[in-house]
This record gives sequence, structure tokens and C-alpha cells, in this order.
Amino acid sequence: MKNRTRIAAAFTLFAVAGAAMAQQALKPEEMIKFRKAGYSFMAWNMGKIKAQVVDAPQSYNKEQVLAAARLIAATANSGMGALYGPGTDKDVAGEKTRVKPEFFQQPEEVKKVAMAFNKEANELARVAESGDVAAIKGAFGKVGESCKACHDKFRKD
Amino acid sequence: MKNRTRIAAAFTLFAVAGAAMAQQALKPEEMIKFRKAGYSFMAWNMGKIKAQVVDAPQSYNKEQVLAAARLIAATANSGMGALYGPGTDKDVAGEKTRVKPEFFQQPEEVKKVAMAFNKEANELARVAESGDVAAIKGAFGKVGESCKACHDKFRKD
Repeated sequence: MKNRTRIAAAFTLFAVAGAAMAQQALKPEEMIKFRKAGYSFMAWNMGKIKAQVVDAPQSYNKEQVLAAARLIAATANSGMGALYGPGTDKDVAGEKTRVKPEFFQQPEEVKKVAMAFNKEANELARVAESGDVAAIKGAFGKVGESCKACHDKFRKD
Repeated sequence: MKNRTRIAAAFTLFAVAGAAMAQQALKPEEMIKFRKAGYSFMAWNMGKIKAQVVDAPQSYNKEQVLAAARLIAATANSGMGALYGPGTDKDVAGEKTRVKPEFFQQPEEVKKVAMAFNKEANELARVAESGDVAAIKGAFGKVGESCKACHDKFRKD
């Protein structure tokens, strides 16, 4: 992915909620449900990569790790910022969220962590094509750090 | 994606649960949670494509539709069959599932619908690169049909 495209994708990721409204009229609880689903499914794919390049490299399977890395990159590129619209800053209609109020008060900081995640996720997908387990492990670690940077700042618990 | 790769991916998709166990020791409730998350996040992305190529083509944005199509293809390629392991045929530990018992009794039929979905999802991602809205609409319709074929056979409600 070219740098310009990557940066554009990162901006799209945290585009104002108004853009999302033009696409789909989602209720706040639907936005929360979908974003949690995205993170959850990504977590499964992170777990698969961890198992094969960190915990048990002898089980490494290039196609499986590449597929997992592509899922993570596709999620990072999917414009999840649209799922942080008005009314999604707290639990609503039975959908719980762990997002902190700071997320909605610090758009510049959110953009920074989002762009970092987007960059590392796309880099991991690129490196996963090589089949170089050590390089994949390094890129995977950077994705994990970019996840953690956002969790530490903007997620409760 | 080459045909061989695609077929291999479809087989991986519904690989025996044993393969998943070698990767990660997931509890049945975790498998159910992750697979539901995958379908849910895909549904959001299907909705985005529907909004831009079916409901309001004047709002079509090539990059957004391509990103959504790639997320759907990446999900199809992610080996979700591993999330249908032992103990995931019914609600467990608070995780509800709508899967029918038939899913676990008809592996050949499951493989057939899974491969059809995998084929159409990857085709949609390919066609989305063209920017041809009519063609994308056609490919999108086929993905929807392949989703429905599985829901009709293997999902309750």
C-alpha cells in the first residue's frame, strides 16, 4: 500500500461521524456492537499469528499467518472511525463499551494512534508475504504495541 | 487470487477443528464469540457496500467500497471453520449460537456453501478494484446469495 493511500485510509478511519451517517443510518448501539465485533475478530487473528510466530514457530504456516495479517490490515483499513458517532460514548441499549470520554475529546491524539495502528497493520500484511518468521514477529510486535497505545489511552480497565 | 489458492482457502475455512487446537487453545464460548464477531463485522461491511452500490449509487466511493470488499474477502479467507470445534454446537457459558445441528452432520454440504461464499467474496474484492458500480452490484448480489444459502440451511430463525 502506498504511503498516500495509507494516510488517506487512516484519516478515513477516524473521519467525522457525519460521513458514516451518509452511508448507513446506524443506531448508537449498532455502532458499538460492530466496532466491538471488529476488535474481537481481530483479536482472534492476532492470537493465531502469536501462536505461530511467537509461541510455537515450529507450527508456522505461511498461508494461515498471511490470511490473519490480511484480516487485520483490512480491519484497520475499514474506516472504523465511523463507528464512534454521537451517543456511542457510553453503554446504550444493552451494548457495553469500554471507550473512555477522552477518546471524544482528543481527536488529534486519536488520529495519531489510529494512523500508527493503520501503518503497522498494513506493514505486517506486507511482511507476512515474505514468509520470514523473524521479520513477521517484529512487525507483529509493532502492531501489538500500536494496539496497546490506544488501549492505554482510550480504553477502560 | 488463483483458483488453487482459493480452493485451498475454502478447505482451510472448514478444516477439522483439530487444526485449530494446534494453533490456539480456545474454549467453546470463545470460538462462538469470535465467529459471531466475524459475521457481525462482515455484516457492517456488507451494509456499507449495499448503501453505496444498491441504495444510493450517487454516494459511491471507490476506496470505501474496496476497503469493505477486502474486509469481507479477508474474513472469508481467515479459516473460520476452526471456530466450529467441539462444544460449539449449542449455547455455552452465556454465548448464544444460532447454528443448527445439521451444520455438524453435513460436512460435505458445509464445504459446498463455504466454498461458494469464499469464491464470491474474493470475486467481489477483485471486481471492486475496477470501480464499475454495475459489476460491483452484481458481485455483491452473489455474495449475498452465498450468505443466504448458508443461513437458510444452517442458521436458526
